[in-house]
Amino acid sequence: MFLIRPSTSSPLNSSAHFVPPRPLPRPVRGKMLLLRSHRLLSSTSAFLSSYKAAIKTSRLAPLGLRAMAAYSAAAASPSRLLLRQLFEKESSTYTYLLADLAHPDKPAVLVDPVDKTVDRDTNLVKELGLKLIYAMNTHVHADHVTGTGLIKKKMPGVKSVISKASTAQADHLVDHADKIYFGGLFLEVRATPGHTVGCVTYVTGDGPDQPHPRIAFTGDTLLIHGCGRTDFQFTENYSRPSQIFTLPKDTLIYPAHDYKGFTVSTVGEELLYNPRLTKDEETFKSIMEDLKLTYPKMIDIAVPANMACGLQDATTKS
Amino acid sequence: MFLIRPSTSSPLNSSAHFVPPRPLPRPVRGKMLLLRSHRLLSSTSAFLSSYKAAIKTSRLAPLGLRAMAAYSAAAASPSRLLLRQLFEKESSTYTYLLADLAHPDKPAVLVDPVDKTVDRDTNLVKELGLKLIYAMNTHVHADHVTGTGLIKKKMPGVKSVISKASTAQADHLVDHADKIYFGGLFLEVRATPGHTVGCVTYVTGDGPDQPHPRIAFTGDTLLIHGCGRTDFQFTENYSRPSQIFTLPKDTLIYPAHDYKGFTVSTVGEELLYNPRLTKDEETFKSIMEDLKLTYPKMIDIAVPANMACGLQDATTKS
Repeated sequence: MFLIRPSTSSPLNSSAHFVPPRPLPRPVRGKMLLLRSHRLLSSTSAFLSSYKAAIKTSRLAPLGLRAMAAYSAAAASPSRLLLRQLFEKESSTYTYLLADLAHPDKPAVLVDPVDKTVDRDTNLVKELGLKLIYAMNTHVHADHVTGTGLIKKKMPGVKSVISKASTAQADHLVDHADKIYFGGLFLEVRATPGHTVGCVTYVTGDGPDQPHPRIAFTGDTLLIHGCGRTDFQFTENYSRPSQIFTLPKDTLIYPAHDYKGFTVSTVGEELLYNPRLTKDEETFKSIMEDLKLTYPKMIDIAVPANMACGLQDATTKS
Repeated sequence: MFLIRPSTSSPLNSSAHFVPPRPLPRPVRGKMLLLRSHRLLSSTSAFLSSYKAAIKTSRLAPLGLRAMAAYSAAAASPSRLLLRQLFEKESSTYTYLLADLAHPDKPAVLVDPVDKTVDRDTNLVKELGLKLIYAMNTHVHADHVTGTGLIKKKMPGVKSVISKASTAQADHLVDHADKIYFGGLFLEVRATPGHTVGCVTYVTGDGPDQPHPRIAFTGDTLLIHGCGRTDFQFTENYSRPSQIFTLPKDTLIYPAHDYKGFTVSTVGEELLYNPRLTKDEETFKSIMEDLKLTYPKMIDIAVPANMACGLQDATTKS
């Protein structure tokens, strides 16, 4: 047997260097910010108009230099939680399938499904023997049509979920601090407005039966070393998003998109290296205002459809 | 606080249904097949010629129907192992960064790096404070140029690794059953010829200090519900690859590519749903012969470069 061992390592004694993860501070309950000072839009056309008007005034900022200090974290999830990350190449969207394997029904949720990959996702649910109960969105997407409506048609009984603040239609409209249970596991709803006023981050629960480290599905609010555009419905207090940045540093960050091929990050890494969200409010605002982003090609189709949780859902209801 | 609870679940008593993972059978040591009956090619041009000649005789088979029986497994990895999956969109290639966080040097390896994403990958290594020691390939790729050469240039001290059977150049030429240590963790080399004669699968170690479940980086040998083309250097006994299929069913499968947006599978799922590799040798051969695949557009650039572990490496040496 041929062994390759770097001179710096010794498999026999290296375990002596193992440092178990330290308990990290938890965000203070009761101090969570609730949605405030948002101009709630009552209809699809008003929502779309505000997107369009805002885009006209948008302008490119250089990415901040990434510091090179070290922070490491493991990608981990316990065996009770099934987590599958799925990618839709055209819009670079990540969809997440979560299930509680310890529950006899294996209840499951899909976060940010895309219409084009509904067959793939529902087949996977069947193959894994899961019972899909919720199709959830982190916000009203402007770059792709949600798969929620199609999924509800293909799998009767599945309920759609979106934030109340989004003003979109869904079976369940959730508020900040709500808990969404699937089996004995749950996702906490955290209001993280900025990309849109209704953006939420779904965070796995805090407790002995819940996954460790925690996992945050941040939508477009926090992308890996980036963030979603803020020229749709800019809200104040977007930089240094406390609802994400006060989570333990080993919390895994799973965003709705990545354009560079990253799949996961951590709160600790984003606190160090996110070139936008680590800035003070004024610098952040100036970076975002200078982006000069083009008009999203899918917005006129995606937003009206997504306000009704997918065109298919709207057709069924009308 | 608003609670959404499916009627079928009760977070209070569901933990009573938790079934801890049962120990699964391990592959029998000492019965591992060694490389055999391969026509070893001594030069780049001979290797390329055999690719080209074989492609001319290739022909599309319908995908086998996927059974709908259930098998579930969790995507998990313990906190000692850092694992990051990275994606290169153009060739749909996955690169994997692994590190032993318990070792003071945080020694790391990159599996199947791509030349176009070397900057991204080496930056990530720096940000995470890792010490990259090996840049490894599962085989001589025909669809992209490996990043190995560029990485060696950018990070002196990094050694390249490929199988001896590939007949390619590298700092370390590994054989079946070799162990590749990074800190106290290691990858086992398993010969899995078929896509090319030199294809290997790197499997995380078996032992109390090693990750559980085990993780197999299968290259193109086993793709999620598929496999790499076999018209380059077809070898016998490719269907039902025992070096992968005898691993515990909860072993995570991380392939070199996915074209449908899947990121991970398990041995158990592939045993049930892989439409090719679950077939007997004759049916498999007939499926693969009927594929009618087109000539790979990158092959004339990629194979000569990859035989020298990346063009950059060849330039340095010549």
